[in-house]
Amino acid sequence: MKQSRLFEKTRREAPAEGEAENARLLTRAGFIHKELAGVYTFLPLGLKVLRKIEHIIRQEMGALGAEEMRLTVLQDRGVWEKTGRWSDQAVDNWFKTKVRGGGEAGLGFTHEEPLTRLMTGHIRSWRDLPVFVYQIQTKFRNEERARSGLLRGREFLMKDLYSFCRSREEHEEFYGKVKQSYLRIFDKAGLSGKVAVTLASGGSFSKHSHEFQVPAEAGEDTIHVCEKCGTGVNDEIKSETAVCPECGGGSFKKRKAIEVGNIFSLGTRFSEALGLSFDDESGRAKSAVMGSYGIGVSRLMGTVAELFYDQKGVIWPPALAPFDVHLLEVGGGAETRRRAEEIYKELLAHDLEVLHDDREARAGEKFADADLIGVPWRVIVGEKSGQEGELEVERRGEKSSMMPLSKFVRAAKSGQSHV
Amino acid sequence: MKQSRLFEKTRREAPAEGEAENARLLTRAGFIHKELAGVYTFLPLGLKVLRKIEHIIRQEMGALGAEEMRLTVLQDRGVWEKTGRWSDQAVDNWFKTKVRGGGEAGLGFTHEEPLTRLMTGHIRSWRDLPVFVYQIQTKFRNEERARSGLLRGREFLMKDLYSFCRSREEHEEFYGKVKQSYLRIFDKAGLSGKVAVTLASGGSFSKHSHEFQVPAEAGEDTIHVCEKCGTGVNDEIKSETAVCPECGGGSFKKRKAIEVGNIFSLGTRFSEALGLSFDDESGRAKSAVMGSYGIGVSRLMGTVAELFYDQKGVIWPPALAPFDVHLLEVGGGAETRRRAEEIYKELLAHDLEVLHDDREARAGEKFADADLIGVPWRVIVGEKSGQEGELEVERRGEKSSMMPLSKFVRAAKSGQSHV
Repeated sequence: MKQSRLFEKTRREAPAEGEAENARLLTRAGFIHKELAGVYTFLPLGLKVLRKIEHIIRQEMGALGAEEMRLTVLQDRGVWEKTGRWSDQAVDNWFKTKVRGGGEAGLGFTHEEPLTRLMTGHIRSWRDLPVFVYQIQTKFRNEERARSGLLRGREFLMKDLYSFCRSREEHEEFYGKVKQSYLRIFDKAGLSGKVAVTLASGGSFSKHSHEFQVPAEAGEDTIHVCEKCGTGVNDEIKSETAVCPECGGGSFKKRKAIEVGNIFSLGTRFSEALGLSFDDESGRAKSAVMGSYGIGVSRLMGTVAELFYDQKGVIWPPALAPFDVHLLEVGGGAETRRRAEEIYKELLAHDLEVLHDDREARAGEKFADADLIGVPWRVIVGEKSGQEGELEVERRGEKSSMMPLSKFVRAAKSGQSHV
Repeated sequence: MKQSRLFEKTRREAPAEGEAENARLLTRAGFIHKELAGVYTFLPLGLKVLRKIEHIIRQEMGALGAEEMRLTVLQDRGVWEKTGRWSDQAVDNWFKTKVRGGGEAGLGFTHEEPLTRLMTGHIRSWRDLPVFVYQIQTKFRNEERARSGLLRGREFLMKDLYSFCRSREEHEEFYGKVKQSYLRIFDKAGLSGKVAVTLASGGSFSKHSHEFQVPAEAGEDTIHVCEKCGTGVNDEIKSETAVCPECGGGSFKKRKAIEVGNIFSLGTRFSEALGLSFDDESGRAKSAVMGSYGIGVSRLMGTVAELFYDQKGVIWPPALAPFDVHLLEVGGGAETRRRAEEIYKELLAHDLEVLHDDREARAGEKFADADLIGVPWRVIVGEKSGQEGELEVERRGEKSSMMPLSKFVRAAKSGQSHV
């Protein structure tokens, strides 16, 4: 893509103090725009990052045998009253709205209720189970405070997966698979080695749940990480967990952390309340055993920005970068232009996604913008860029070197994730 | 995909009377599920259709040079007050909701206001223009009545494109291109020859706009179609338009119709109210000339269902069908299973999307379900399905015939649209 055709501009000046680092970085780089506290527009570059995350998630959901669907934002009060989650006392961050012609609707912050009700029309026998379905959808939470940029949105993008099983054993097996799947997703998204699986409170559903926590100063959660094996325990259950649930170690380090995913065993709480039962092999009616599994898609984008940046801007992991290569044409002149255009086409032909800075601007401005945008590889084409077939190549944050095109293509392709 | 893995079931019984035909058909076939009046969940099969429509639209938006982004659902009251569109008197179908910590937000029914404000941070000079951006996003309209299934939703999926130009001439040129682009989109979606371009009221923005109307009894609009050239005039401006604006013909036929798209010239109504100006080549400040262009994505799905069905179910145009081929394994037996599995793999290897009915069910049930689901091509594998290399092939609604695999692959691929 030609940078001259991108409408969004980077900003030299940082947004107001008090904004979270991820929001400051991504706003300056032209990835997001704040509409309201906790409500962000995704500009073309930001949408590209979201779609790369979605792509990684869809691959893994497919591998789990989960089907994708799309539930609704507007929520029917009736079904939430049946599970006791409609009132503002039970759930304090509903957005609610009046419906013309009478009644009120909520804006979905999760989807156990409507999905469980829907399944009563599709699940009747043990032969219909297990069922695994997910969606990637905008969710709404009426947060009291929303000062953490993409880390705590009032409107945010989430992947939520739900499982319906015949028995606790079948559920536990799937739950274990999701745990592994989530670790693969975070690895692929560039968070390899950064995510701690923690034991957390199961809320009103079960004794415990698991969370995927990324230690970071910007995090709103507190976790205790086992110094022996890296497993974590959430602060709210630390008092009841003297030793590490994984290795039995007794030494923990207290850390602030960002929750990027969670997995819940729901038991039969929703299937009983909403009448989702099936006939087992001997013809007896049983309630389906449920689980729910979330990943904050937009929060993951914010988390990556919080982890990988320097004073010049974000440094994207290759799999999430909006482009594989930033091609900087510097110095002007017809020959430079011809050469840049030729390299642009060659890189595209090798199936690389290239942002070509073809603007009439000073070299310093181009480099500063490239630093802000944070594409991991950079190719510089100027008057003194060496002979044909050789490229001046730079990794974001490192020194430039000369490299044959074929070698560069292999290096740049190794981390890419095409949508 | 294996049909035994699809959780959604077809329904023999039709939903309650009073539902629109598209909702009845798509509910029975397991494509959608009604949450509230005018609010539908998209089950996996329905989501596949939506994504095929999105894919066709994205191709054409790319060809127009438009960038994709994603604006927000929650709307800042302040920016809508500036253009006079916040009050319920000015816009009678807002959904509004209280924000914790104070204030109210709206749920976006269109996005001129936030986008225009956003552009004030990115457009300064004539060099920054023109800008074309679009999104595919869930929109909300608090309709008094919502009884037309996907044709008039309270929550629905829309593609909205916006243009920002330097002059009326530049705007007119783009407006003309979008008109052609929209006709290509509807052609690709299977509505070739079914769409009338009509002259409509321009509302408060300009004298006229254009709409893309599909004559159908289920339509909520009334249009007058020129009997000579097929151009239309909307009912609300018919009294001021005695002759056809295209060919001068004077004979019209009155029809009910479904509006599947519209294009508006907005002039400087929004750019003036929100201060979106740029310096022209001589340094003078000018307001950007805007246009907006909508296509109802979920409505298009409903429209196609209203147009193409028989008493047995929907008949999808190949480009929108959830699968290219429905492979029906009938009669059971190990040899039939082996043969079906082999054909399934061969068709997949030829890059066809195949739904393989591998369920243990009677042949009659499989055929009835296939009729409801409406995949355009069907391959039947039974005990007497002819020799290796030959397929028993049926077009939805036609008689079956024997065909070599290679010939069938060519036929089935001709209309497909991969996502």
